[in-house]
Amino acid sequence: MPWELTHEDIERIAIGAGILGTGGGGNPYRGKIRAQLNLEQGYRLTVVGLDELPDEALVVPLGGMGAPTIGMEKIGRGDEGRVAVEVLQDRLGVEVAATVPIEIGGGNSFAPIIAAAQLGLPTVDADGMGRAFPETQMISYYFDGIAPSPVVMVDSQHRTFVLEHVEETRLLERIARSICVQLGGSAMVANAPLTMARLRETCVPGTLTLAHRVGDAVMTAQQRGNDPIDAVCKVTGGQVLFTGKVTDVNRRVERGYNFGRLTLAGLDRRWGATATIELQNEYLICRVDGEIVAIVPDLITLVDSERGLPITTEVVRYGMRVTVLGIPAPPQLTTERALRYVGPQAFGYNERYVPLDKSS
Amino acid sequence: MPWELTHEDIERIAIGAGILGTGGGGNPYRGKIRAQLNLEQGYRLTVVGLDELPDEALVVPLGGMGAPTIGMEKIGRGDEGRVAVEVLQDRLGVEVAATVPIEIGGGNSFAPIIAAAQLGLPTVDADGMGRAFPETQMISYYFDGIAPSPVVMVDSQHRTFVLEHVEETRLLERIARSICVQLGGSAMVANAPLTMARLRETCVPGTLTLAHRVGDAVMTAQQRGNDPIDAVCKVTGGQVLFTGKVTDVNRRVERGYNFGRLTLAGLDRRWGATATIELQNEYLICRVDGEIVAIVPDLITLVDSERGLPITTEVVRYGMRVTVLGIPAPPQLTTERALRYVGPQAFGYNERYVPLDKSS
Repeated sequence: MPWELTHEDIERIAIGAGILGTGGGGNPYRGKIRAQLNLEQGYRLTVVGLDELPDEALVVPLGGMGAPTIGMEKIGRGDEGRVAVEVLQDRLGVEVAATVPIEIGGGNSFAPIIAAAQLGLPTVDADGMGRAFPETQMISYYFDGIAPSPVVMVDSQHRTFVLEHVEETRLLERIARSICVQLGGSAMVANAPLTMARLRETCVPGTLTLAHRVGDAVMTAQQRGNDPIDAVCKVTGGQVLFTGKVTDVNRRVERGYNFGRLTLAGLDRRWGATATIELQNEYLICRVDGEIVAIVPDLITLVDSERGLPITTEVVRYGMRVTVLGIPAPPQLTTERALRYVGPQAFGYNERYVPLDKSS
Repeated sequence: MPWELTHEDIERIAIGAGILGTGGGGNPYRGKIRAQLNLEQGYRLTVVGLDELPDEALVVPLGGMGAPTIGMEKIGRGDEGRVAVEVLQDRLGVEVAATVPIEIGGGNSFAPIIAAAQLGLPTVDADGMGRAFPETQMISYYFDGIAPSPVVMVDSQHRTFVLEHVEETRLLERIARSICVQLGGSAMVANAPLTMARLRETCVPGTLTLAHRVGDAVMTAQQRGNDPIDAVCKVTGGQVLFTGKVTDVNRRVERGYNFGRLTLAGLDRRWGATATIELQNEYLICRVDGEIVAIVPDLITLVDSERGLPITTEVVRYGMRVTVLGIPAPPQLTTERALRYVGPQAFGYNERYVPLDKSS
């Protein structure tokens, strides 16, 4: 049965998507405000399950592209997603049945819901990452190596770009990113629709529901005076990797991404004295006292140590008291084929992927 | 009456377009070979005058984008222009009547003729520069500041990009150029069609005919044992600025353009001891013994001192014996409004535009 989001649902999804977003995916607070605004304007924000649309129904993967620090300041007009889907339908001469997130992480959990709502369509409860990643070829829908075509980009001034016949996803990413940089660092991107049958084969299922559950766990724990971090670990199968204070934030915008490194000083000797976390839009690799304790595609996420709320890469700053969580990647990301796109090598690291020790 | 190009016409246009191209516009030899190949394949390469199509007929400005050094090596498949015009027609739901060069310079004199021939259309005898320039906003059709929309880019693998609602021509240039860089440095670009009425208002007229006349003057002089450089000056109103030997070629690819500087040592004291010429795809400013003797938008062109044949920026090299010619810019480029787009400041120079001294 379709799920119509309420203000409270949006609140929970924002927290959960922030935690699953591993620091990226666009600011979740901004996404939340936009979603709630659409709700107030009378739009119905509807989520459907993977079994609620027929095999041949067409679903548009959609999300914002850009560096998170830029997305925070260049907030868009709010209808870019709708326009992008309309251009896509027009170009292909088809009607689409729904949208689906490219990534559940951050504000990009809401972007497809908002676009769909403005078109009177639902959004499918799934995504292409189960988290957030910085690049197009890291979306599970494209792990076969074939780029979506056409792809439509729309910015806050309704500048519109239709990219067609770019067969390699990495090249598509480079081209789209270079356009994005010229537009000032952010744009909405709608990819060629998938059939529901194909989506079911390639997606990470149920991630809007998961985000909601994670957010609900945090809020419920807060209300009851329980430890919200425990609650997150329970829902996600995650674990605490480190707890400490942010002592150094090295963050820059380069080629349309945020890159950087955080340094944390330990506040609890159980976890170690120093941690470093490297990032490209998202947190990618966490070292404690020089040893890797978690590495992409496993989820590394920062939450504030008091309330368990997510701290994304664009807002993290000196002095914050944070807990670093490690959450096992969904199985769709850890196959040999998937690791070619989302494993450590795909981000330029020499380290091998070693799954989080689930027993620790 | 439509003018059907012969092998000999193509030969002449290639020389003339090379000279008018001020070093850029794409390698004219490559353009010539491609045009002659199309002729051999049975295509009719047809040029029509500005008075041969009705006011409301739609004309597509077309040309290759890229750094000349790259265009020399990445030679394309030969049908990119046709595909770009087809995509444009499809997007707009219109039939176009003709193509027109964006620039007469270099190989870009032939690109629209080849595309039109493959579509069974003619090319209008005009262009948007009367020479070559490196950037989109330097095309006279857009001196009103309004960017063409849509613009279609197609590369040698038929990767296709439709750019729409980019209202500022300089931004359009930056976006298209950044796509071009990602594609490996060259692509064919078809701009939204103009009506013939608008084209007549904004173009530099008769430049395919002019290129033919310049080339014919060179070849005729060569055949008769006359000085081909004198012949060029007579047809173009140009003058010799310097004659010497190339002693230094500083040329690099940057942001999808060629930038650089040539140094020449004088061989005839009448003209001076040393000359330097700065370039961005095209030759922009020529100094002799430290004094500016010609500056953009006036045409600065290099020809070999023996045969009067053009030496473009991608082939110029150490040791060549060259004559530097200065040719007055067409009047369309020297209005106050035009100079905002094609004057020295538009290229980052502080120097004022001082027209070539026609009396020297």
